Amino acid sequence: MGMNYEKINEWILAEDCFEPAWLGKCEAVMAQGNGYLGLRAAAEERYVGETRNLLINGTFNKFDADEVTELPNAADVTAIELWIDGQRFNLVEGSHEGYRRELNIKTGELIRTVHWTAPNGKKVKIIFQRIVSLKRLHDIGLKITVEAEGNPIKLKIRSGIDARVSNTGSQHFSEVEKRFYDKKYLQFVERTTQSKIDFVLNAVHSFEKNGKQVLLGTDVNIERRYLYADYNVELEAEETFVIEKLVNVQTTRDFDAAGLNTDELQKKSLEDLKALENIGYDDLMEESALEWQKEIWDNAPVMIKGDKESEFDLFALRYAQYQMRIFLPKHDNRMNIGAKGLSGEGYRGHCFWDTEIFLLPYYMFTDPDAARKLEEYRYLSLPGAHRKAKENGYKGAMFPWESAWLDDGETCPLYMDVDIVTGKPIKVWSGIIEQHISADVAFGAWQYGIITGDTDFMEKYGYELIMDTAIFWGSRLEPGDDGRYHINDVVGPDEYHEHVNDNAFTNYMAAWNLGKAIEYYEMLKNDKPELFACLNQKLNLDENYLIWKDSVERIFLPQPTEEGILPMDDRFMKGQYIDLTKYKQQDFVGGIMKDYNLDQIQNIQVCKQADCLVLFYLMEERFSPEVKRASWDYYVERTLHDSSLSLSTHSVQAADMGDDEMAYDLFRKAATIDLGPYMGTSNAGIHAASFGGVWQCVVYGFGGVRMLNGKLRINPRLPKNWDELTFTLYWKGEKLSVTVTKDKVDVQNQTGNRKVDLSVNGEELKV
Amino acid sequence: MGMNYEKINEWILAEDCFEPAWLGKCEAVMAQGNGYLGLRAAAEERYVGETRNLLINGTFNKFDADEVTELPNAADVTAIELWIDGQRFNLVEGSHEGYRRELNIKTGELIRTVHWTAPNGKKVKIIFQRIVSLKRLHDIGLKITVEAEGNPIKLKIRSGIDARVSNTGSQHFSEVEKRFYDKKYLQFVERTTQSKIDFVLNAVHSFEKNGKQVLLGTDVNIERRYLYADYNVELEAEETFVIEKLVNVQTTRDFDAAGLNTDELQKKSLEDLKALENIGYDDLMEESALEWQKEIWDNAPVMIKGDKESEFDLFALRYAQYQMRIFLPKHDNRMNIGAKGLSGEGYRGHCFWDTEIFLLPYYMFTDPDAARKLEEYRYLSLPGAHRKAKENGYKGAMFPWESAWLDDGETCPLYMDVDIVTGKPIKVWSGIIEQHISADVAFGAWQYGIITGDTDFMEKYGYELIMDTAIFWGSRLEPGDDGRYHINDVVGPDEYHEHVNDNAFTNYMAAWNLGKAIEYYEMLKNDKPELFACLNQKLNLDENYLIWKDSVERIFLPQPTEEGILPMDDRFMKGQYIDLTKYKQQDFVGGIMKDYNLDQIQNIQVCKQADCLVLFYLMEERFSPEVKRASWDYYVERTLHDSSLSLSTHSVQAADMGDDEMAYDLFRKAATIDLGPYMGTSNAGIHAASFGGVWQCVVYGFGGVRMLNGKLRINPRLPKNWDELTFTLYWKGEKLSVTVTKDKVDVQNQTGNRKVDLSVNGEELKV
Repeated sequence: MGMNYEKINEWILAEDCFEPAWLGKCEAVMAQGNGYLGLRAAAEERYVGETRNLLINGTFNKFDADEVTELPNAADVTAIELWIDGQRFNLVEGSHEGYRRELNIKTGELIRTVHWTAPNGKKVKIIFQRIVSLKRLHDIGLKITVEAEGNPIKLKIRSGIDARVSNTGSQHFSEVEKRFYDKKYLQFVERTTQSKIDFVLNAVHSFEKNGKQVLLGTDVNIERRYLYADYNVELEAEETFVIEKLVNVQTTRDFDAAGLNTDELQKKSLEDLKALENIGYDDLMEESALEWQKEIWDNAPVMIKGDKESEFDLFALRYAQYQMRIFLPKHDNRMNIGAKGLSGEGYRGHCFWDTEIFLLPYYMFTDPDAARKLEEYRYLSLPGAHRKAKENGYKGAMFPWESAWLDDGETCPLYMDVDIVTGKPIKVWSGIIEQHISADVAFGAWQYGIITGDTDFMEKYGYELIMDTAIFWGSRLEPGDDGRYHINDVVGPDEYHEHVNDNAFTNYMAAWNLGKAIEYYEMLKNDKPELFACLNQKLNLDENYLIWKDSVERIFLPQPTEEGILPMDDRFMKGQYIDLTKYKQQDFVGGIMKDYNLDQIQNIQVCKQADCLVLFYLMEERFSPEVKRASWDYYVERTLHDSSLSLSTHSVQAADMGDDEMAYDLFRKAATIDLGPYMGTSNAGIHAASFGGVWQCVVYGFGGVRMLNGKLRINPRLPKNWDELTFTLYWKGEKLSVTVTKDKVDVQNQTGNRKVDLSVNGEELKV
Repeated sequence: MGMNYEKINEWILAEDCFEPAWLGKCEAVMAQGNGYLGLRAAAEERYVGETRNLLINGTFNKFDADEVTELPNAADVTAIELWIDGQRFNLVEGSHEGYRRELNIKTGELIRTVHWTAPNGKKVKIIFQRIVSLKRLHDIGLKITVEAEGNPIKLKIRSGIDARVSNTGSQHFSEVEKRFYDKKYLQFVERTTQSKIDFVLNAVHSFEKNGKQVLLGTDVNIERRYLYADYNVELEAEETFVIEKLVNVQTTRDFDAAGLNTDELQKKSLEDLKALENIGYDDLMEESALEWQKEIWDNAPVMIKGDKESEFDLFALRYAQYQMRIFLPKHDNRMNIGAKGLSGEGYRGHCFWDTEIFLLPYYMFTDPDAARKLEEYRYLSLPGAHRKAKENGYKGAMFPWESAWLDDGETCPLYMDVDIVTGKPIKVWSGIIEQHISADVAFGAWQYGIITGDTDFMEKYGYELIMDTAIFWGSRLEPGDDGRYHINDVVGPDEYHEHVNDNAFTNYMAAWNLGKAIEYYEMLKNDKPELFACLNQKLNLDENYLIWKDSVERIFLPQPTEEGILPMDDRFMKGQYIDLTKYKQQDFVGGIMKDYNLDQIQNIQVCKQADCLVLFYLMEERFSPEVKRASWDYYVERTLHDSSLSLSTHSVQAADMGDDEMAYDLFRKAATIDLGPYMGTSNAGIHAASFGGVWQCVVYGFGGVRMLNGKLRINPRLPKNWDELTFTLYWKGEKLSVTVTKDKVDVQNQTGNRKVDLSVNGEELKV
């Protein structure tokens, strides 16, 4: 049952049976999008337990004073109900065969086919097709082909724009206008309640009978938050009827709606819809598929050759590319990537350190322009970071743990889940004390600058980001009785331990941030005096430089124990050791929270996710192989991977250490976070960062790619069932194609504008 | 299929088959309540198309500035999902037999029984019971009995408090608190967003296995707007497992929560829940059934004896009594009766003229205290009526067409449905120009005062209501060129004609209102000088008296044509005559709006509902039998009964005219507005006023009861298939029991405090 991986080919994610309990999973993993909008793959017909989501990136709204801003769920356009001789088509009633749902990641098309016998015995074959255009960011197409199988049928169709949806009950929209034009074009206008963004949705239907366009009488209806049309048609046996529904959605937040008022946007979007109507579903689909080809498959091709098993690996890698494109807001630097992409309401569309640490590498190496936009977003959201610092009594840029619209500041909710001891919701401390995010942002900007060689970015945004976060760290350090500076009362990447002191990841990253600011201060002062003067005035660099120097000298950096284990904080290693086997075997995450509350977990040696290991990975040369190995042995045993960010970090680390089987095993686990058989885990949306993780497992782990000291290194170690791995990398503007076999690494410079220095398996090359 | 009336007994409304397309109908007609709260009969398990409603009377909230206040849909407590060996119990999947759902209107209990075979072949028998206590207004009980039929089963139960519900997408609540106490008691606190009313909901579960109480491990969960517990148990073949869920809901608007803050209400309601837990489902149910017996069936017994057909008539009459109790806010004079009672979101919980014209008679004659509260509500909402008058440039009390919370003023929405010509929503003019409501309110107060003899009410509220509305009419009349006063630009009861002048109903009622104010002015001045002085000061009576005298003398009252037809306004009879057969035969209302828009209908001789006929009925002696007959013949042909208020008016009128078969036929139609076979018509809720209509058909129509010139008249005409009709009437504090047979009318004074004058078939009696 469920998704059948054996039948996966290079490009198709398919399910062969319909299981109502698994709706959420398939809605999420088969979601479509283009970075502007994300559309869950909820079926055209309704089911109990479904979640219909249409999310438009960046359109954050706050339901009430006690909630945080989130991406509001726009009116649904995908529900199309069909009645066959009065029986509502759905796969729970009647019987069906030949069911298959396929997401073609090469073209972006979602196709569902089924032969249905209604409870009254009538038979039909129905094919559903759906596309979110990668070329036309506002446009969605749906196509339904109904064939009367061996009997005449009376077909009733109900389709419209349905704004009765909400975000798990929170309604973010007021109705503005809903109407028909010419009994044909449906238009719905809704406005977010707090951020006052207008959404205009338009839809039009057209019909073909036996291949010829037909007009049907329209029964138009307007209800509260709902606008729809009913159509009726009769088919003789074997006749075929095609319904096309073309939809667009535009908002007053869009760059391409800048300056338009609601009325003007209504007019413009209606005209756009009429143009779309002329294109039709098939051409919309073709055009979008070409865009996929050009932008992804030709631009960043990957190939894995090997045994049967490796076919899934290739698919998983390409699927990661598919995902990383559908939630990427390439069109707008005012938005970023939510932890669930645009595939669900989980984490409310907020972005985390996931962007810099897990996703940015893929974009930097394959689509530098897109990567730059993600970092520009951080720069544009500095006002919120300044406010957060001020509110917490610090200086500089203290980035929000959860980030939404530019000036929203911290949007991490204060409570979640249930404390099994008190019966109350658990307080979430991350928004207040998970502070490494500021260093992560700086790290991302630095990485981007080095790998792309984009000095324009560094001069406009990058240096400032690194220095402004360093100012935060300068103000954040606390002098201890030992004469050292400490960072007390934080949450590190491992969120099972709160209010810890001197979290290794946090302290080392802060020290790195301070050091990098010092380095750039000195460089800019010498090499770019004008820019320096400008930044000096803005950030008071001369004074902060002294603070940085002092800080970096005296910051406390946890040191490995005698056994070579890096203590992740001042408390963890003193905690109680317990047997975690039970939780490691559970088919859901967070199971330990059903037995212990967070207060109790504080004193247990259990990690939600990698902590020190992320540090080893980001600062590969900072720690000795012995420390890495000893720490690995210690932490792996104590880690539940209750965060989707954990597995890929471990996989890359295992590859680095030469534990090939372990690396491959962890890669497979990382690759099946969403694609795997656990059917509840993706309900709230896919795990965006995990796709960056999959790419990192392959390219950083097996491909051995790393930026070290500003230089490209490639030390590949293929899994034993792979014969060949091919991928591409942009490096300082040059595009390299890398092919790795068991005994050879071939690097081609495809652009060839200038030579690239790199080290391959220890050998220095120019390509 | 559907509800099987042949199997109806005196007290049971039953359905024998489950049809997913008819969910809404059964949810509404089998709803339960107690006037404080109303609970739709949505099944414990979820279905596509269900509407789960828990409405607490009077708790109005406004979603945004463009919406009107409405009764918010409180968190759902009825959803209880069961899994049998992993298969979610629901009647769309697997197979079932022996399905039966019964609403016992005598006890108020809802019972559903089914034998279910899961898709995996496991068999269970499940009985669902549910009660809303008539005695304990805050309390709800659910009981589920699961029997493993011939096989062992693993049963999983999920039950909680689910605040993800909304009003058709509009969310009226913010979350305040959600938590468990002792892993056992669930508490959810939510607050309306604008009116800031706190709702506290508590729930507790208990379990019995084979008749013995058992404790189950609880898996507690808190999600956004959702608090729930999971339980698991294994049953051997033939074992029986009982789940009891006891729930209470209290709000800071409640009289019995006066002065409590949220925290105190949480404590109090939790203590109340613990007390309820000790009572248990069975006793809660017994106690409530006794209350039904005492309050309704002993207090206001009815009996119809006759042929087989008349059994339904008796049921329909009692069902009307059931309905008129479950939506009656007897406990609180700050609220009234919504057009859909508390059984759905339709008309947003607002009350209309329905209260005075259609429902008040039943309450006045059977429960005068409750009737008084309904009229006190109008008095308490005078501030809104004054504001509406002022906003429209008038004086006195201009009552809102749609009334919600006391100071909400007019709450009629501005737009609804779709104009089939323009494609836009239709502007609703009733809130602005359907003005007869002010006279209707005065009429209700007057009727109540006369029939109950409640002088305390009249002195405190009644006279003032009548005079304050008369002041409105005095300011409303417009002098015409003809030297008469006109009321131009109104909507009469027949809402298919807007912006008409001199609507007969409106003008006659206004004249009546003015006349009654004059009468009371003179009476009070002579008989109750202190009260007069007080009212005179408050309402400036002396000055208004002169206006009233002038008004009543010169107001234009439409006169019958030569043919004896009373023109309903200045335009209708000039309209185009069209064949309405098509619309009369449709199984839904409002069908004409699919062919004509309102602009077009203005010029067509078509009535949505009775207009002049309501006038004949309220002012029986004002018009000659010839005028009534001629007008009847004229209007009936042109009336679509597209309002549920229409049929009973016609039935009573037909009975008055001696058209016995017509009267009976219309009564049956009125009785099946909700109970009938049209499955979509009650989805948004039952038709509250129609139940008053049913009672009026029987008691006013066939019973021939009327208050005429302050005196009770009984002129019965039984339908030919009835042999005997018994009902009771309160008349000025005395309780009369009336038994009508074909040749005899027996009236007994059951209280016997003093003699009652009445006229029976023209004979004057003292009883």
